[in-house]
Amino acid sequence: MDIRIEKTIVPKAKPDWEHLEFGVDYTDHMFIMDYTQGTGWHDARIVPYAPLVLDPAAMVFHYGVEVFEGLKAYYAEDGRLLLFRPDANAARINLSGGRLYIPELPEEYFLEGVQALVGFDRDWVPKLPGTSLYIRPFIIANEPHLGVRQSRQFQFIIILSPVGAYYPEGLDPVSIYIEDEYVRAVKGGTGFTKCGGNYAASIIAQYKAKDLGYTQVLWLDGVERKYIEEVGTMNVMFKIDGEIITPALEGSILPGITRDSVIKLLKHWGQKVNERRISVEELQQAIRSGKLEEAFGTGTAAVISPIGELSILGEQYIIGGGQIGELSQKLYDALTDIQWGRKEDPFGWTLEIK
Amino acid sequence: MDIRIEKTIVPKAKPDWEHLEFGVDYTDHMFIMDYTQGTGWHDARIVPYAPLVLDPAAMVFHYGVEVFEGLKAYYAEDGRLLLFRPDANAARINLSGGRLYIPELPEEYFLEGVQALVGFDRDWVPKLPGTSLYIRPFIIANEPHLGVRQSRQFQFIIILSPVGAYYPEGLDPVSIYIEDEYVRAVKGGTGFTKCGGNYAASIIAQYKAKDLGYTQVLWLDGVERKYIEEVGTMNVMFKIDGEIITPALEGSILPGITRDSVIKLLKHWGQKVNERRISVEELQQAIRSGKLEEAFGTGTAAVISPIGELSILGEQYIIGGGQIGELSQKLYDALTDIQWGRKEDPFGWTLEIK
Repeated sequence: MDIRIEKTIVPKAKPDWEHLEFGVDYTDHMFIMDYTQGTGWHDARIVPYAPLVLDPAAMVFHYGVEVFEGLKAYYAEDGRLLLFRPDANAARINLSGGRLYIPELPEEYFLEGVQALVGFDRDWVPKLPGTSLYIRPFIIANEPHLGVRQSRQFQFIIILSPVGAYYPEGLDPVSIYIEDEYVRAVKGGTGFTKCGGNYAASIIAQYKAKDLGYTQVLWLDGVERKYIEEVGTMNVMFKIDGEIITPALEGSILPGITRDSVIKLLKHWGQKVNERRISVEELQQAIRSGKLEEAFGTGTAAVISPIGELSILGEQYIIGGGQIGELSQKLYDALTDIQWGRKEDPFGWTLEIK
Repeated sequence: MDIRIEKTIVPKAKPDWEHLEFGVDYTDHMFIMDYTQGTGWHDARIVPYAPLVLDPAAMVFHYGVEVFEGLKAYYAEDGRLLLFRPDANAARINLSGGRLYIPELPEEYFLEGVQALVGFDRDWVPKLPGTSLYIRPFIIANEPHLGVRQSRQFQFIIILSPVGAYYPEGLDPVSIYIEDEYVRAVKGGTGFTKCGGNYAASIIAQYKAKDLGYTQVLWLDGVERKYIEEVGTMNVMFKIDGEIITPALEGSILPGITRDSVIKLLKHWGQKVNERRISVEELQQAIRSGKLEEAFGTGTAAVISPIGELSILGEQYIIGGGQIGELSQKLYDALTDIQWGRKEDPFGWTLEIK
C-alpha cells in the first residue's frame, strides 16, 4: 500500500509525560483512507492531525454507522516499539463492520496504517513505566444522505493518544453492581461489535453506578436478565472453586482481545477455562459458599481489573477480602510483561514497529 | 431566544422540483446551537449550510452519542406554511436524549429553531402536490474525548431537505418479511429512541429483505422472538376482524408520532384501537381464517404504507388481495388533508409558520 505523507509544519508541544490522562492529548498526525462505492478503499495518507470536515447530513451523525478499535503501542526497555496483537484488531473491525453493513477493510490496510502512523509519530510514545500510546482506528460513514441505507462513502481513520499508567500505584480493585434496568445488548443485535451505538446505550448506567457508589456496572443478558455478560466496557471472569469461568461468546458479548489472551495464557499454564453461561444466582451461591475466589474484568485499558466488591440486587458482597487476587495479579504481570517486552512472548503476540 | 443570523452570500440553485429525491438536496441555511457543560445551551444561530468541522476524537464518531428527529413543513394551497405536531418531536428528542444521557434541550429552543429556519428558507419548500420540506433536527456529542463518559459539549443542528411525493401515483402496497435472525431492539435498551445505533443495527436486514425479494423487514421482539414490533423504520398496525391492533409501547418500540396521530384519528372516528402485544402466531391465524383485513406501516416519510404481502418463516401470504385497504386509504387521506391544510384540523396539530 502506498501511503502519501504530509508532515505537519507546526508540531505540537509534547504533553507532560508525568501527568497523562486517557484520551486527552493527540499526536501530530493521523492516518486517513477513503472508501467510495465502485472504487473501494483508496488514498491512504498520513496528514497533520486536524478536524474532520463533514457534511451535516453525513450518515455517521444520524444513523450511528461507525465502528472502532482500541489497541496500544509500548516502548520496551531495550528500545523496541511494540504492538500487541494488532491482527486481532484488524479482524475484529471487520467483524463489527460486517454487522453494520460496512464494506470490508483489507486487514493489511489496517495493519500497515497502524504501523506507519505509530512509526511516524514514535516520539509521542511515552516511555515512563506503565505508559503507552493508545491507538484508535475507526471507520465512519460519511456520505451526506438522509435515507436509511448503506452509505456509499466511508473513511478509515487512525488517531493516537499518549496515555499514562492505568494503575500508577498497582492494581486497584473496583466495586461493581448488577444493572437490572438498562440492557446493553441482546443476541441478534450488535453486542458482539465495537459499534458506537453499544457505547451510547451504556453511558447512563455508568452514572447510575456512580450515584449508587460503585465504579462499574455488571451487565446481564437482555433476554432472561439473569446471565452475566460484561462489566462496564470489559469482559468478566470468575474463579470459582479453582475453576475459571467466563461468559461464552453467544452474540451479545464483545469478543475481547484481552479476554482471548487471558484464556490462551491460562490454557498455556495448564489451567482449565470454562466459557459458558453463568447466572447471577450461581454467582451468588458461589459467594455465599465461599467458593468465589476471584472476579476480574479484562480489557485493553486496564488489562486486568480486579473486582473487590459486588452488589447484587441490594445485597453487598466483598470478594477475596476486597484484595487483589493471586491469579489477577499473575495474569496482569504476565500480560504486561509481554506487552512491554520485558519477558519472552511464546505466543508471537507482539509486533515490532521498525 | 435570540437567533443570530448570517445569510449566505452564495445561494444555491434550487433543485428540479419535478424530480426531488429523499435526502439529497439541502437548503441554503442551517440552524446550530451549542451546549457546554456549565453554560448550557447557547449561541443559537442560522448560518449558511456548510460542513461541520469536528475533531476526529469527537465522541459522536466513536460512541454513537447522537439522537435525531424527522418532521415536515407543507405548503397549503392557500399559501400557509404548516408544520405538523412539532411539539411532539420536541418532546421526543428529549426522550431519546435522556436515554443517551444527553442534557435536556428546552422544547422552546427546538420549536423556535425549527420555525425560524424553515421560515428563513421558505423559498425551498416545494409546492407541487405531495411534496414537502423534510426537517432533520439532531443532537451530536462533539467533545473530543476517547474515554467513555458523558460528553461535556453537544451541538443541536437543524438541516432541511426538499422532498418529492412519497407516492407520486397513489398509495403503493409493500411486501415485507419477518426477520428471525437480526434483532432491532430489546426492552431496557434504546429501541424507544431515535438514536443512531438503532438505525446502524437495522441496515443489514434491509439488504437481506431486498435479496429475498421484499421491500421491508418486520421486526420481532428481542426476548421471545415472537411478538411483532415494527416494520422497517415504521410502526405497524393490523385490522383484524374489525378491530385495530398495534404493538404496545413497552420500551423497545419507537413511539411514532404518525402512530399516535393514527390512534387519535381512529378514536375520534369512534373506532377502538387495541395497543397490546401481538404474536406472529396470532397474525398467522388471523390471515388463515381470513380475519386479517388490513396491515399497514405508519411513519413520517410514507404516512401510511399498506402491506400487501407478508412472508412468515417461508410461508407467503397476500393481504387484502394485495390491494390498498379502505382504512389505510381513509387514514392516509385524513392525515395528509390535515398536513397540507386541505381540511379542518380538529386536533390543533398544525402550526403555521408566519
